[in-house]
Amino acid sequence: MARKRRNSDSQLLQPVAGNGLLDRRLLLKSGMVFAGAVTTGVGGIATRAAAEPLAVDPWSKTIGATVPGYSTPSHFEAKVVKTLGDATRPGTQQGRTPHQDIDGIITPNGVHFVVARAGAPDIDPEKHQLLIHGMVKQPLTFSYNDLLRYPMETHVRFIECGGNSAPMWSKTPIQANIQALHGLLSCSEWTGIRLSTLLDEAGIDPKATWMIAEGADGVTMNRSVPVAKAMDDAMIVFYQNGERIMPWNGYPMRLFLPGYEGNMNVKWLRRIKVTAEPTMTKDETSKYSDLQPNGRAKLFTFPMEVKSVITSPSGMQSMREPGLYQISGIAWSGFGRVRRVEISADGGKTFAEAALDGPVLPKALTRFRMPWRWDGSPSVLMSRAVDETGAVQPTRAALMTSRGAQFRYHYNAIQSWNVAQGGAVSNVYV
Amino acid sequence: MARKRRNSDSQLLQPVAGNGLLDRRLLLKSGMVFAGAVTTGVGGIATRAAAEPLAVDPWSKTIGATVPGYSTPSHFEAKVVKTLGDATRPGTQQGRTPHQDIDGIITPNGVHFVVARAGAPDIDPEKHQLLIHGMVKQPLTFSYNDLLRYPMETHVRFIECGGNSAPMWSKTPIQANIQALHGLLSCSEWTGIRLSTLLDEAGIDPKATWMIAEGADGVTMNRSVPVAKAMDDAMIVFYQNGERIMPWNGYPMRLFLPGYEGNMNVKWLRRIKVTAEPTMTKDETSKYSDLQPNGRAKLFTFPMEVKSVITSPSGMQSMREPGLYQISGIAWSGFGRVRRVEISADGGKTFAEAALDGPVLPKALTRFRMPWRWDGSPSVLMSRAVDETGAVQPTRAALMTSRGAQFRYHYNAIQSWNVAQGGAVSNVYV
Repeated sequence: MARKRRNSDSQLLQPVAGNGLLDRRLLLKSGMVFAGAVTTGVGGIATRAAAEPLAVDPWSKTIGATVPGYSTPSHFEAKVVKTLGDATRPGTQQGRTPHQDIDGIITPNGVHFVVARAGAPDIDPEKHQLLIHGMVKQPLTFSYNDLLRYPMETHVRFIECGGNSAPMWSKTPIQANIQALHGLLSCSEWTGIRLSTLLDEAGIDPKATWMIAEGADGVTMNRSVPVAKAMDDAMIVFYQNGERIMPWNGYPMRLFLPGYEGNMNVKWLRRIKVTAEPTMTKDETSKYSDLQPNGRAKLFTFPMEVKSVITSPSGMQSMREPGLYQISGIAWSGFGRVRRVEISADGGKTFAEAALDGPVLPKALTRFRMPWRWDGSPSVLMSRAVDETGAVQPTRAALMTSRGAQFRYHYNAIQSWNVAQGGAVSNVYV
Repeated sequence: MARKRRNSDSQLLQPVAGNGLLDRRLLLKSGMVFAGAVTTGVGGIATRAAAEPLAVDPWSKTIGATVPGYSTPSHFEAKVVKTLGDATRPGTQQGRTPHQDIDGIITPNGVHFVVARAGAPDIDPEKHQLLIHGMVKQPLTFSYNDLLRYPMETHVRFIECGGNSAPMWSKTPIQANIQALHGLLSCSEWTGIRLSTLLDEAGIDPKATWMIAEGADGVTMNRSVPVAKAMDDAMIVFYQNGERIMPWNGYPMRLFLPGYEGNMNVKWLRRIKVTAEPTMTKDETSKYSDLQPNGRAKLFTFPMEVKSVITSPSGMQSMREPGLYQISGIAWSGFGRVRRVEISADGGKTFAEAALDGPVLPKALTRFRMPWRWDGSPSVLMSRAVDETGAVQPTRAALMTSRGAQFRYHYNAIQSWNVAQGGAVSNVYV
């Protein structure tokens, strides 16, 4: 048996695609296989213990920090924060999620991405109301506390800004980390009520096919939403990863449209007006629309398309010595579940399938992992996601061909990371 | 069709157990049913819109708060914090999770429960090491950065202190909220490496059946762990809900033993010594053991048994007017998945099955929900969980009979909440 397992294990250590990609099942096997690969491979990780006992570190000799009412990360993690764009302007403000420094699929609330036009309004939930009116049988007003009495549901779902990855439309590859390139994307456990419950209570006119959702921020952010989505899986959410929503993510409540571009998930929701047609607001005409080669703007790109990106290693990071590594990243689709993710270490010549952390949830980030033996030579890493509808993440060349050069939103092409001799990782177009 | 649906809907509005419990499928139906139940039932929720347009609130007339690098909750949520026990003592410190104020299954990192003996050591991860030695072929030392190169896994899992719910051993019911009674329980998405990978690399002596895990805090917390668990699903974790572990939860790394009592999940892990027998440390002899009627202490109660508690409504809360409500709570088992949760509104005379938020994960909190029409009369609410092994959460009377009066840990009996005329909710023994 032992001999048989060794044979099987050594088979797992054979590359499954070019340039050192190893079988994903290696990650699921007993630790012995990976440890063996490490210690007998090109580079070991552990060090033989030099002496016992272990020296006692200074922090073990004192009483540490007292428990606070609300915990925050260690000061050694002070750099793991949102990077801020336009933070000095009272208008548009962005905060990007540091995907190079986090793992799993939950984005901690401290670093959930933000796009705000007028900061976060300081809403008193005791005084906040929601109005539903327009083409309904009976206009209704709900106090915040009223809404909390309705039945709730909990779902892990991503939100991605329609403008996420916009730097990738640049003709030459911008050298920046994944936070700067793809940081307008986060994933949380959201809890709230179904919007359909409230719309049913108000009674929608059968001729109504749209609604407009309006926020209580200083610019009265508003977007048109199809009634079909509103009656499907749309929610009004109150809790983000268990606690009430962060002020910048819509406290005390936001519209949540699973899979739809972030801007439509109107924060600080105060009003829904049911209408016969889209309202053609600023954020669905001059913004979040894409100029096509024929000179007309493409409007209403709602579900975010299948996409993935390798988070480790990623742009501006450095590999250490050659040896065994785990490639890790995230994949998602606004159309449902991720079916599979394929990895290439040779710039797209060959691909092999990555392991997915389960359970794989619809319209949620999916974490993928892949063992890789890096021999120290220049390599180009890529990930390619396929969703349950069969949609395949396109190459950058294919995306540019199909959409033309004037798109500024909705970029979902394959991200390529170049690993140079010496280990420096950079953004590259292949 | 419409008539038929109405009939079916009105069937769903028939009670499924005593004192107003309604069919859980009501929560899964179109909103019309619930809205109908609300507006035609004993109490409506929404208010007919009095006038349009909605008044513009003051917070909508100004520029709000600028996006910070690290978000924290609104000042209106300032009371949603851990309650602290012994916070002025340099020794034992507890922080309890406010389950009455959170929803879903993820506990936000800010309010994850804490039991610390010497506060949180201020560990520099660049200087932190892990030693594995004792009955192994080759003692090994790992730097923190070495460990981050190993393959990782992500799992949502609960941790419960062995002393959670200890106030329920009191002979008379202590009047306190759920945070005080059951707040030493949390659930997070944890990411790390399998402990078996490292133990395989060191090579365990076949005669070794235990190990001792030691932390780097000022009291050198340590616990004995069976090698069988260490080689099964034990992990060393680095990430908690995506970000690096909070200082009080073990930064930069802790042992994680899914389902086992919290104290064994040694925080600030620095040393694992593989042994032939348990070490009989303070926290597994004088603490975390239970005095039996025969005068001998019961040692080594490892997996936390099947348990549940209703979080809304719960102790010290007040129901408002009679009408339709959603009962909500959490269930869990250290032995695997929750199979079902049953609710009673009449003090245990009749029970009906609650809806479970999916996916139901092993050794994780499971959120249950149940519609209830409260007629305003005194009621006793209970939840009873059953896990996938078939274990049923016991009544308090059964637990007291089977364990005797001297137990101080490992309480898992059914929690009963009394709803008085007028709506005040209190802890009651039934």
